[in-house]
Amino acid sequence: MRFKTSVSKLKNDDVIIRGEPLSSLIETLSFSDAIFLLLAGRKPKATESSVFSALLVAIVDHGMGTTSSLAARFVMSGGNPLNAAVGGGILALGDYHGGAIENAMLQLKSLSGEEGKSEEVAAQYVERAVRKKETIFGYGHKVYKEKDPRTATLLALCQKLGYTSPFIDLATQIETALEKAKGRKICLNIDGLIAAILLEMSFLPSLGKGIFIIGRAPGLVAQAVEEQDTERPVRRLDESEIEYLPDSDP
Amino acid sequence: MRFKTSVSKLKNDDVIIRGEPLSSLIETLSFSDAIFLLLAGRKPKATESSVFSALLVAIVDHGMGTTSSLAARFVMSGGNPLNAAVGGGILALGDYHGGAIENAMLQLKSLSGEEGKSEEVAAQYVERAVRKKETIFGYGHKVYKEKDPRTATLLALCQKLGYTSPFIDLATQIETALEKAKGRKICLNIDGLIAAILLEMSFLPSLGKGIFIIGRAPGLVAQAVEEQDTERPVRRLDESEIEYLPDSDP
Amino acid sequence: MRFKTSVSKLKNDDVIIRGEPLSSLIETLSFSDAIFLLLAGRKPKATESSVFSALLVAIVDHGMGTTSSLAARFVMSGGNPLNAAVGGGILALGDYHGGAIENAMLQLKSLSGEEGKSEEVAAQYVERAVRKKETIFGYGHKVYKEKDPRTATLLALCQKLGYTSPFIDLATQIETALEKAKGRKICLNIDGLIAAILLEMSFLPSLGKGIFIIGRAPGLVAQAVEEQDTERPVRRLDESEIEYLPDSDP
Amino acid sequence: MRFKTSVSKLKNDDVIIRGEPLSSLIETLSFSDAIFLLLAGRKPKATESSVFSALLVAIVDHGMGTTSSLAARFVMSGGNPLNAAVGGGILALGDYHGGAIENAMLQLKSLSGEEGKSEEVAAQYVERAVRKKETIFGYGHKVYKEKDPRTATLLALCQKLGYTSPFIDLATQIETALEKAKGRKICLNIDGLIAAILLEMSFLPSLGKGIFIIGRAPGLVAQAVEEQDTERPVRRLDESEIEYLPDSDP
Repeated sequence: MRFKTSVSKLKNDDVIIRGEPLSSLIETLSFSDAIFLLLAGRKPKATESSVFSALLVAIVDHGMGTTSSLAARFVMSGGNPLNAAVGGGILALGDYHGGAIENAMLQLKSLSGEEGKSEEVAAQYVERAVRKKETIFGYGHKVYKEKDPRTATLLALCQKLGYTSPFIDLATQIETALEKAKGRKICLNIDGLIAAILLEMSFLPSLGKGIFIIGRAPGLVAQAVEEQDTERPVRRLDESEIEYLPDSDP
Repeated sequence: MRFKTSVSKLKNDDVIIRGEPLSSLIETLSFSDAIFLLLAGRKPKATESSVFSALLVAIVDHGMGTTSSLAARFVMSGGNPLNAAVGGGILALGDYHGGAIENAMLQLKSLSGEEGKSEEVAAQYVERAVRKKETIFGYGHKVYKEKDPRTATLLALCQKLGYTSPFIDLATQIETALEKAKGRKICLNIDGLIAAILLEMSFLPSLGKGIFIIGRAPGLVAQAVEEQDTERPVRRLDESEIEYLPDSDP
Repeated sequence: MRFKTSVSKLKNDDVIIRGEPLSSLIETLSFSDAIFLLLAGRKPKATESSVFSALLVAIVDHGMGTTSSLAARFVMSGGNPLNAAVGGGILALGDYHGGAIENAMLQLKSLSGEEGKSEEVAAQYVERAVRKKETIFGYGHKVYKEKDPRTATLLALCQKLGYTSPFIDLATQIETALEKAKGRKICLNIDGLIAAILLEMSFLPSLGKGIFIIGRAPGLVAQAVEEQDTERPVRRLDESEIEYLPDSDP
Repeated sequence: MRFKTSVSKLKNDDVIIRGEPLSSLIETLSFSDAIFLLLAGRKPKATESSVFSALLVAIVDHGMGTTSSLAARFVMSGGNPLNAAVGGGILALGDYHGGAIENAMLQLKSLSGEEGKSEEVAAQYVERAVRKKETIFGYGHKVYKEKDPRTATLLALCQKLGYTSPFIDLATQIETALEKAKGRKICLNIDGLIAAILLEMSFLPSLGKGIFIIGRAPGLVAQAVEEQDTERPVRRLDESEIEYLPDSDP
């Protein structure tokens, strides 16, 4: 079997990551900068550094009740080491859970070549998608209806730092166009905004899920550790919680 | 089934993480600070913030050839989504791979109650461990013999920032005592130094592996994405690479 | 890296498994016989073949509400391929879920060297364990109090087939001794009986969990497929199901 | 959260699986019959029982060098419990590894409605697929060129038992048509034959991967246990095995 790589290299007495010695990165980069370097192959500029760190914070945890938190807790509850539980939680981050970032990146990217003002491009896109009943990724939220508070803060931070982008413009124009088309607010959610920012930073859509995994790993560690420290093992449903369908016992 | 938690809480239009609204954390904390808050239940002080970020950088990737990188790559190679591959890599972070941090934390913590100068405590501990042939976790490295370059840089950073700790003192004294006892350098490796720092920050040993998982997740994403983007699927051993033992075909 | 094996061998135009060509096994062995061969390194005798198949049937599924079924379903619910979901379910089969077989094997094995009638050995063992408050693995069940119906049927099958074993005798004597010591029935559960049978078949305790995994894999496939076919994605807790502890929002 | 199921039901003192009490299944069904019942919702007929058991045997293990065996071994090598290692192996069973069964089932099913003799349907299908450069799943093998020995035996078994099927006819006719179209033998591999048989048994294509997982779980247990029992921990690549691409150290 052949093993080829350009990610990182063991050399003399150091690890070279994307061309930079790890020992010097320890001194000079923050953790989120090091993540950026590892994934983008270059160090972030000052503004990018702040925005990238902030978007990872926005992902860090979203409560005990998420699909991935529960998967991590059930694995832990069976009597397993922490890495198995966190691994189980990350397994649950599939197409429907954290997957919207990649899909929203693909959609925004496909629109970026279209001519016209972002307002018009957005309106045409929404009209087309609504007509064809296609999902517009990055909009709406199970819990947040009027606005996603994480979106609002991250957007405000970008403005404060002067971090602008045609992708962010387009993403917010789509929110406006959606409200017009639907007659009610369907908010730009955190996945949608992150998608726009990551495109501006030149990340490929295929990295969208990867960045979500990195951002959520700390939350999964915290959820799994709490399960281990405070709960009795072998969680299971009470019989009263299960609805047996007729053909389960004909 | 009952679900109780104090990690985080969905409230009105925000997530409360360890008592702090996520929307304000996005503005005010770096990603590594948010990780610290989530795991320690408090925000880091300024020096802690820098040191904690630096130790996560030290973990971020250690080359293609590690056990977890290869596990992630094999899962990806079977034709899977990125979350399954990264989950597979994290599964490989077991007792022998990233597990030394927790063990070193337990050992250092058990010594912290002992009376006497750290130099003497270290010497007695090493003498006892060598006599009883017990493993001293956090020392020695497969590749680095004389010194672990990551340890050196992280230690220098602590000194520069004025971040001192009896646990760090003890950890370096053990290195000295080990050299005396063995007649050759067995370096304080990055796991050992991280263990001392995490104890100083008041983390429980049971979080040692969790912090390693968080620090290595970005590397596993990078390794898995490279596998996906550049390699043909279904890696397998060539027959010539396998040594069949006699009883495999009697 | 070196790869040595004696499990199986690719040879000319066949796979040799424990010395037997796979193409001939397809013709001559049942699936459970092939599992026995793979794990024990020899083909089962006729009675062993029936009993081993029956004990795998006893494990095959135990309802939607088990820890592993739920882990598999949550991974599926995030939008993942079937292998990730089943992998997630198997992750949950930790020390507390299916782990009793290995522990019961270790306990029964440790008693097998003791002199005296099995009745006496069992009574002394139970007296000692109760006094020292040690767990006796393989007895008692969350749902089944008086008797585990799977145990009863498997035991009856062994008797019908004339499959006897000092380990099975000892396991049932411990049940009797436990009832005397505790004043109430604590039934020999299916894990305890399987442990006794596997020891009689000369399996090592370290294979106990492996056999449980193989037996339960079909149930996890069925649970995960049902989740995929009949449920909406991204299961999550309703807020009303979560109890937020005071320090989650001080 | 609501939990509805028709797979199995805890009732009084038993588990009802697809309408049948588990305690009676232990007595009356073989392990592979119980798997069939669990997945198909009905007991197999006598011939189906033999053929289904045989096809599971055909999957049971395919050597140390497969992608899933290696994933399981790397997870084990990091210092993990057996369930994590087997879970890691199952994760590797993605689209390219065991996935051909489902794809072949979909292809064969799509042809089953076409009018004409199976010989003609096969010839037209191969002609069309070759022209459009579409993959024909279930044909060809990395190691076996002239014939897949497992296919030959399983096919012979079907003939001996009188188990016939239009899907099997079609699958073998496609092999013939492929040889004519390509001028060289591209054998019907084991995945292709299993696909035809599973369709005849009325399984949905979405269960193809599930049956592969169940069949391969024993092999993954055997591979992981051998790794645990005979290898030193923390497998990693030697530096000499890695080819560092130029941009890894510019």
